[in-house]
Amino acid sequence: MSLLVTGSIGIDTIKTPYSVRENCLGGSAVYFSMTASFFSPVRFVGVIGSDCPFDLAEVFAGRDVDLRGLEIREQSKTFRWAGTYHEDMDDRTTDHVELNVLAEAPPKVPDEFKGSEFVFLANTAPILQQQLLEQIDEPVFVAVDTMNLWIQQYLDDLTALLEKIDCLVINEDEARILADQQNLVKAVRKILDMGPSVVIAKKGESGSIMCNTDGDIFILPAFPAEDVKDPTGAGDSFAGGLMGYLAQTGRTDFETLKTAVAYGTVLASFTIADFSLDGLTSINRDDIDSRFETLKKMTSF
Amino acid sequence: MSLLVTGSIGIDTIKTPYSVRENCLGGSAVYFSMTASFFSPVRFVGVIGSDCPFDLAEVFAGRDVDLRGLEIREQSKTFRWAGTYHEDMDDRTTDHVELNVLAEAPPKVPDEFKGSEFVFLANTAPILQQQLLEQIDEPVFVAVDTMNLWIQQYLDDLTALLEKIDCLVINEDEARILADQQNLVKAVRKILDMGPSVVIAKKGESGSIMCNTDGDIFILPAFPAEDVKDPTGAGDSFAGGLMGYLAQTGRTDFETLKTAVAYGTVLASFTIADFSLDGLTSINRDDIDSRFETLKKMTSF
Repeated sequence: MSLLVTGSIGIDTIKTPYSVRENCLGGSAVYFSMTASFFSPVRFVGVIGSDCPFDLAEVFAGRDVDLRGLEIREQSKTFRWAGTYHEDMDDRTTDHVELNVLAEAPPKVPDEFKGSEFVFLANTAPILQQQLLEQIDEPVFVAVDTMNLWIQQYLDDLTALLEKIDCLVINEDEARILADQQNLVKAVRKILDMGPSVVIAKKGESGSIMCNTDGDIFILPAFPAEDVKDPTGAGDSFAGGLMGYLAQTGRTDFETLKTAVAYGTVLASFTIADFSLDGLTSINRDDIDSRFETLKKMTSF
Repeated sequence: MSLLVTGSIGIDTIKTPYSVRENCLGGSAVYFSMTASFFSPVRFVGVIGSDCPFDLAEVFAGRDVDLRGLEIREQSKTFRWAGTYHEDMDDRTTDHVELNVLAEAPPKVPDEFKGSEFVFLANTAPILQQQLLEQIDEPVFVAVDTMNLWIQQYLDDLTALLEKIDCLVINEDEARILADQQNLVKAVRKILDMGPSVVIAKKGESGSIMCNTDGDIFILPAFPAEDVKDPTGAGDSFAGGLMGYLAQTGRTDFETLKTAVAYGTVLASFTIADFSLDGLTSINRDDIDSRFETLKKMTSF
């Protein structure tokens, strides 16, 4: 089935305790599209300014990513982010942000994309996510990411959005803030009461937990990574693997969602093994399936 | 097969953000024996002073725990510990410790116990663990717990002990300190080079990871707990479920170890649901097996 993503394209500068990478390609829509395209064609919706040094057509060459939703605004500048990861590689500090085009009107969803069935709205202001969602005719399954900034400052917008979506993918700490509940299982259940039928809380190197309104629970550890070079994009790669697999199968039952979470976990593990997209460019679907089987073996008893 | 534990019997005072329990029964050998006895007879070795208000024969009444290794020292006082758990219930501060009998000579292993096949040496000074181990004739599988104090102050004793054991069960942070390696998988592999053929790193509410010298890896999330009243004893209950199951089956291959880790995870989840032993006294093997099956379902894909 068709899969659409809306999200950012970023120029990232990343520092870790071991290395630095300046002005590399990043952004939620980029990581999502790269990972989801291993499973399903992707319809890409996002905005850059005329300063963007990356040719996305070249970045996605040979991959089934439809860039007709990429808007280049001549008078605007591309989103920039600089961050530093600390020793455990799970915590990070934002050093610098220039929202630039992300502070302007959201991109237009092309007419050819309006019939999309699976939709991922990457993290941005919930009011913009809602405006993007309104441009899709009748989506089958809508997943959304958000962050503490919106929870704390635009809670009304976010709760309005939650009533209209199927799945919220959220960091564990943000889930606790959104639900005002320290216990993660209880927090996730409380968010289910706000609208989505599925909530997936991401716990970084501790894995993830997924619950649905039928009371089903799925818990999965992260893939045990020996070399983490750059965790940037892990969450969007997780979402890309997840939604890519769902769109490929066309199903959203809990058993399919479990497999999709495992694929998301696998894709995130490839992303964090190198800077920017470097951990993803040299792999193929066989590598992904092989690590999926390894993860299955490592977690089964 | 026979299973022996050496460890502490404690008088605990526990504060959590929600409640306080003063002078309740605790200690590593107590939690271990209670949980292991659901699977296998347990031989108990430990010391208390004459001030101990608990009758362990009564505590273990109806359970297959052989207390012939319990030493009561008339001139000594029982170990006491007081601690406070913080909001996330994974971190704790020690408010007060009186080592008392634990600072004296270790207990004697009774002659009837010297032929024990499975042995768990709960956390204490590694020199004492070694003295206890020397009293066992020819153990089949020896597992050991330790803590940062010994790693930092008695590393030589600990490394000497590690060469003589089969399995180290350790908290993730302690594994990182022992291996001087921040990445947990690498840390565990480094500890495997120090002697044990199996290392299990416990990650609190994030579950555990087990590696062996054959390169096998098993990762398991914690059981998703909605009500954590008192995490005290979780690690020793994990070890009790683990070693109890191994002793019951008499096997230590990796597939059996995986099942044993899952039983350990289940037993820990019962322990933390209430203060002291209260989460364990009202359950039976059916409850344990039922939660084991639930955990299996929650983690399989």
